[in-house]
Amino acid sequence: MSIRIVQSKQNARLKELRRALASPGRNENGLAGIEGPNLLAEAVRAGLHIACVFVAQGSERLVEALRLSERVEVLAMPRELLDAALSTETPQPLAALVEPPDWTWAHVVGDRKESAPLIVVLAGLQDPGNLGTIVRSAEAFGADGVVCLPGTVSAWNPKAVRASAGSVFRVPVVCANERDALDLLREAGVRILATTAQGAQPAELIALDEPVALVIGNEGNGVPVDLATKADGAVTIPCPGAVESLNAAVAASVLLYEAARQRAAKSGGPLERRGGSR
Amino acid sequence: MSIRIVQSKQNARLKELRRALASPGRNENGLAGIEGPNLLAEAVRAGLHIACVFVAQGSERLVEALRLSERVEVLAMPRELLDAALSTETPQPLAALVEPPDWTWAHVVGDRKESAPLIVVLAGLQDPGNLGTIVRSAEAFGADGVVCLPGTVSAWNPKAVRASAGSVFRVPVVCANERDALDLLREAGVRILATTAQGAQPAELIALDEPVALVIGNEGNGVPVDLATKADGAVTIPCPGAVESLNAAVAASVLLYEAARQRAAKSGGPLERRGGSR
Repeated sequence: MSIRIVQSKQNARLKELRRALASPGRNENGLAGIEGPNLLAEAVRAGLHIACVFVAQGSERLVEALRLSERVEVLAMPRELLDAALSTETPQPLAALVEPPDWTWAHVVGDRKESAPLIVVLAGLQDPGNLGTIVRSAEAFGADGVVCLPGTVSAWNPKAVRASAGSVFRVPVVCANERDALDLLREAGVRILATTAQGAQPAELIALDEPVALVIGNEGNGVPVDLATKADGAVTIPCPGAVESLNAAVAASVLLYEAARQRAAKSGGPLERRGGSR
Repeated sequence: MSIRIVQSKQNARLKELRRALASPGRNENGLAGIEGPNLLAEAVRAGLHIACVFVAQGSERLVEALRLSERVEVLAMPRELLDAALSTETPQPLAALVEPPDWTWAHVVGDRKESAPLIVVLAGLQDPGNLGTIVRSAEAFGADGVVCLPGTVSAWNPKAVRASAGSVFRVPVVCANERDALDLLREAGVRILATTAQGAQPAELIALDEPVALVIGNEGNGVPVDLATKADGAVTIPCPGAVESLNAAVAASVLLYEAARQRAAKSGGPLERRGGSR
């Protein structure tokens, strides 16, 4: 591994990292910034192309642990120089510019699917922590992908990447306008369900083992009324307690759990076993 | 409503607010700080004693909307003076010192309970957003209370209060050391279940409609091994996807949902109806 030393904050790559972290998503070179040894290890494990690694002097062993190809550009610099480029309050001594996966709709609703599609549609979700948590739960509960409608925070926002614990490197996340999203989901035979805090059918009375897209709304206002009207139905998580609503990431995760539970039951999983043993 | 004008950042009440927000929990006067019109409205609705309200000049209508008793002290000040005392990045023009509810163990496991206790135990949870989200879900899914073991972030941390959407004003939250917590839960006949990412019985195969306490671990390390050993059993949320674990607030919320689902089924709720209609 050959490491080049950087001494100036005017270094072009370092400036590119700072800009990439401040404006999430692909930059003009098709790269996005990520921070911290755990996420970088996840990115390597996910097979992402690592364009450039930035390490604080004295922490070079963190780069060795990644076992990168010899061709990856590695820049070492004084810690304060790296810290100034990073987005976190307590910056870590490692960062990178990586090439995000190139997801398309075929990854989300392609006909190669063995099981009924399970998709999350985010309608104006604003908190990057919520978005990352939803992507993490989407992977955990076997969803096929996440669709971000306009007004939704970027999945490459550093806080979203962190909250996803690396799932954003593996779960297909696509952006689309509302009309295209609804058309493409319907063409794929997916039932579009708006989540609502009350008034709709409880999740467990709805067949979530069939192809479904769960629409999660904005943290403050929920799913926009006009979008809910265009959906094929609505779903509620029954809450015995006197709360107005659940956190958006919790609502999405509970619905994904319920879908996974129903799907496991259908294929003779825990739910069936339970029925048999009681 | 009589409003007193404050012009100095040396004002004793304003200094008390700043300190209360920086060091969450009851201060020497038994008060805690909260920020923003929504949370303050929730605190009023929850019947909390409001000791002092702080409003930026020009936003006095926000105080009127609260319909406070005439005796509540209201201080108005230049916006920048109030902003400097607050903890949020984008401060709101309203804050208050309030008296947190005085929860005891009797509120959490008292024998006045009509239904089987459902309790969340937090073992070293560090993220205030996660804690607040869990308290919000605890209220939503009808839990009796939340027990914070040493090392857990304060429920009165401003970020926790915000993430709870006001649930922290209504859900009993008590602090206890591990030994007392285990003893008191066992005395009350509550089964203590450690949550674990894999290897234990799936949640839906465990009778969560009986008296249970769900132990949620630290974000990075999960439930400490020695605490898991002392528990009465363990529970896992089955995840078809290849993730190491779920977000701590998501794990707690999914288990609370599963418990609420089983409890509703027992009393002839949606699960039974579903079984009948299939």
